[in-house]
Amino acid sequence: MLSALDLARRIEGGELKPRAALDLCAEAITAREQEIRAFVALDLDTARRAAEDPRLPSTPLRGLPVAFKDIFDTADFPTQYGSPIYTGYRPRADATAVALTRRAGGIILGKTVTTEFASMVPSSTRNPRNPAHTPGGSSSGSAAAVAAAMVPIAFGTQTAGSVIRPAAFCGVAGFKPSYRLIPLVGVKDVAWHLDTAGLFGAGVADVAFAAAAVLNRDLRVDHAAPAAPRIALIRSHLSPQASAAMQNAVETVARIAETAGASVAEVTLPPQLKDAYQAQFVIQNYETFRALAFEYDRHRDMIGKQLREQIDRAAAVSAEEYDAARRTASRARRLLADAMAEHDVALAPSAPGAAPAGLDSTGDPAFNRLWTLMGAPCINVPGFYDNELPLGIQIVGRFGRDKAALEAALFVERAMARKLGA
Amino acid sequence: MLSALDLARRIEGGELKPRAALDLCAEAITAREQEIRAFVALDLDTARRAAEDPRLPSTPLRGLPVAFKDIFDTADFPTQYGSPIYTGYRPRADATAVALTRRAGGIILGKTVTTEFASMVPSSTRNPRNPAHTPGGSSSGSAAAVAAAMVPIAFGTQTAGSVIRPAAFCGVAGFKPSYRLIPLVGVKDVAWHLDTAGLFGAGVADVAFAAAAVLNRDLRVDHAAPAAPRIALIRSHLSPQASAAMQNAVETVARIAETAGASVAEVTLPPQLKDAYQAQFVIQNYETFRALAFEYDRHRDMIGKQLREQIDRAAAVSAEEYDAARRTASRARRLLADAMAEHDVALAPSAPGAAPAGLDSTGDPAFNRLWTLMGAPCINVPGFYDNELPLGIQIVGRFGRDKAALEAALFVERAMARKLGA
Repeated sequence: MLSALDLARRIEGGELKPRAALDLCAEAITAREQEIRAFVALDLDTARRAAEDPRLPSTPLRGLPVAFKDIFDTADFPTQYGSPIYTGYRPRADATAVALTRRAGGIILGKTVTTEFASMVPSSTRNPRNPAHTPGGSSSGSAAAVAAAMVPIAFGTQTAGSVIRPAAFCGVAGFKPSYRLIPLVGVKDVAWHLDTAGLFGAGVADVAFAAAAVLNRDLRVDHAAPAAPRIALIRSHLSPQASAAMQNAVETVARIAETAGASVAEVTLPPQLKDAYQAQFVIQNYETFRALAFEYDRHRDMIGKQLREQIDRAAAVSAEEYDAARRTASRARRLLADAMAEHDVALAPSAPGAAPAGLDSTGDPAFNRLWTLMGAPCINVPGFYDNELPLGIQIVGRFGRDKAALEAALFVERAMARKLGA
Repeated sequence: MLSALDLARRIEGGELKPRAALDLCAEAITAREQEIRAFVALDLDTARRAAEDPRLPSTPLRGLPVAFKDIFDTADFPTQYGSPIYTGYRPRADATAVALTRRAGGIILGKTVTTEFASMVPSSTRNPRNPAHTPGGSSSGSAAAVAAAMVPIAFGTQTAGSVIRPAAFCGVAGFKPSYRLIPLVGVKDVAWHLDTAGLFGAGVADVAFAAAAVLNRDLRVDHAAPAAPRIALIRSHLSPQASAAMQNAVETVARIAETAGASVAEVTLPPQLKDAYQAQFVIQNYETFRALAFEYDRHRDMIGKQLREQIDRAAAVSAEEYDAARRTASRARRLLADAMAEHDVALAPSAPGAAPAGLDSTGDPAFNRLWTLMGAPCINVPGFYDNELPLGIQIVGRFGRDKAALEAALFVERAMARKLGA
C-alpha cells in the first residue's frame, strides 16, 4: 500500500515529486484496476498536469493523489451515486470535502465505486486481498483502491457501517470521524442524522495526516509516541455474533495492548444501548424514505429491486416511531458517555469476521450501526490476519475526541505490528 | 392574503376547485408581481394542468399552490441560489421538501427570490405592506409572495433570522420549526448546524396545516381551541435593542395574552446565553467559509462584494474557536431548557422593529440568531401594526415541541385579533 505520510515526507524532503507519487498510483491502477474495478471515473491526464504545479510540495497534502467515493459531488467528474438515474450527471459544484482537499493541495484522481445510493446492494468491486471475496460496502471502491495501492487516500461515507466494514475487509485503516467533523455539503444524503464522511489510508497515521490536512485541524498523531490508552473491552448483546476467529482477534489484541502498557477493562454496555442499536434501523429507514423521495417518486423503476423493496418497507415507519427512536438515541449517548467516563476508547470488532466469500453481499454492519448512531469517532486498525484475510479491529473514541481516538488506534496498531510482525 | 386552511376546507367541501385556488394566485401575481418582484421563476401553465388532477382534493394539501425559495433544488425549475454562478442551473433532483410537498398534493407554482446564497445581501424584492421598505431577507420572495396573496404557502430557510424576520416585516405568519424537522436534503447549505427550513402562510393555523400535511405529522392546531399557554416574557441583553414601538408591542401582547387566560412571567436569560449569541456568529462564519468553498475558490469574482468580504473575514475563524463556540451552544441549550422548564413558550420581538425604509438592507436578525442556534421552534405571529407597518411578535417553543409552540402562537394570535381587531 502507499503510505500517505511516507509519500508526503519524501515530497517535503525533496526526494519525491508529486508527479512521481501519481505515477505510483497509475502503475497500480494499470496492474490491478481491470480485476478490482475500484473506480467509476479516472482522469490521470488532468491529474498529471495538476501535479506539475511547483507550489504543491509546500501545501498541507503535498500534492498527494486522493480519490472520492462517487457519492461526493464533483464538478470535474461525473457523479452517479451508483444509480442509473444519475447516468452522465455532472454537478455544478464540488462537495465541500472535495473543495477542501483541493485547497489543501490534494489532486483528485477519480471517483470510486459506491453501491447504489450507498446502500447494502453489492457493487462490482472485488477485494484486493482475495478477489473472490467482497470488499464490503458501501464505500467499496475507496477501500479497495487504497488496499490495491492505487491511491494513498480515499474518502467514503458511513450511514450504518460503510467506512469501517470495507476498511476491515480490505485490510486498510478506516477513519469515520465524529459525526459531521468532515462537512457533508455536496454529499448525497441518505439519512441525515447518520451520514458521516470518513477516509481510508494505509495506516492509522496516514488517515490522521490526511484528515488533519483537509480539515486544517490538530489531528496528526505521527509526531510523538502515542500515550498508553485506557481501553474498554466492549461486551454487548452483539458480541456473540462475532466469529470465533474475530473473538480471538479482539482478545489477542487486548492482551497485546495491555502488554504494551495500555490498561484494559471489560465494559458491558448498558441494556439501553441495545435499544439504541434497534433505533438506528428506524432512523435510517425513516430518513432514507425522505432523502430519496424524488428518486423513489419519479424514477422508481430505475431503483434496483433490493433497494426499492427496502424503501417500500421504510415507508411504514411513522413520525412517532422515528421521534421515539431519536429520543432513545439521545439517552443512549448520555449513557455511553457515562459508561466511557473512565476510558479513552473502546475496543470491539470492526465486523463479525473476515470478508465473506462471493460478491452477492457486502457483509453485515452489525458492529458499526450503534457507533454511527452515537456519532463516535471509529477507526479500523489493520494488521490482524486469519488465513490471509484481514480481521478488522475497531477503536471507538468519545464524541469530539477524534485525536485521542487516533492516538489510541496508533498505539494499538504499533503494538500489533511489533507482536504480530505485520 | 390567501388562507391555506380556508382554501383547503373549501376544496375539501367541494366549493372550490384546486384550479380556482390557483387562479386566485395568478390574479394577485398579475396585479402585483411587477412591483413586488417576489418570484425568480414561475410556471402557471404547468401548474394549471397539474391542478386538473381529480385526485387532488383528497390529498393532504388538497392541490394548493406552493412556492419555494430559490435555495431549494427543483428539477422542473431553474435553481440559482441568488447567485450568477448558478445562472441557468437546473438540478437533476427535487429537494426533499419539494418532493414531500408534491407527495402531499401540493402544486409547485414557482421559485421565490432569495438573497445571494441566503446571505444578508439585499435582493430586489419589495415589501407588499409598503414597497418603499425592505421585505427582510433572506427569504425575501417567499414572505412577500404570501403577503401579497400571490400564494397561500411558501417555503424559506433560516440560518440567522431569514424566516422570522421577513415574516415579521411583511406581516405574515412564519414558522421556523425545530432544527431539521423539515429535511434539508437538496437545500443549498450555508451553515449546517444552523440552516433550518421553514414556511410562510397567512396565519398561524395555515403554517401549521401546511407543515402537518407536508411532513405527515401531528402539527395541526385548527381542530380545537388552543389551551392557555404558560408564557415566559424574555428579558435579555438584546431587549434594549428593540425600538420603543416594538417594546410596547411585546408588552401589550403579553397583557392581551394574560387577559385571555395565559400565565405570563418575566424570565431573564442566564448570562451564558449572551455567549451563545456570540457563538452563533462564529459557527455561521466557520461553516459558511467551508459550505461555499467551491464557489469561493473557483468563482470568487462572481460573488458580490458584500458577501465576498464577509467570507474573507470568515476565513480567519479557527477550528479551536469553532469547537469552543459549539461547546458554548451545547451548554446554552441545557441552560435554556432549565430556564424554560416551567413555561411552554417564550415571548420576544421577531425583529428590532418594523421593516426599515429602503432596499439597501434586509434588517437585523439580532432577535433570531440565538433561537436558531438553540434549534427552538419559532413562530412569527402577525397582527400588530404601527403606522401601517407590521411589528412581528415571536413565540419561541421548546426544542421538539413544535405543536405546543404552534398552539401557543395560535392562542396569542386569536387574543390579539379579538383585542386589536386585526
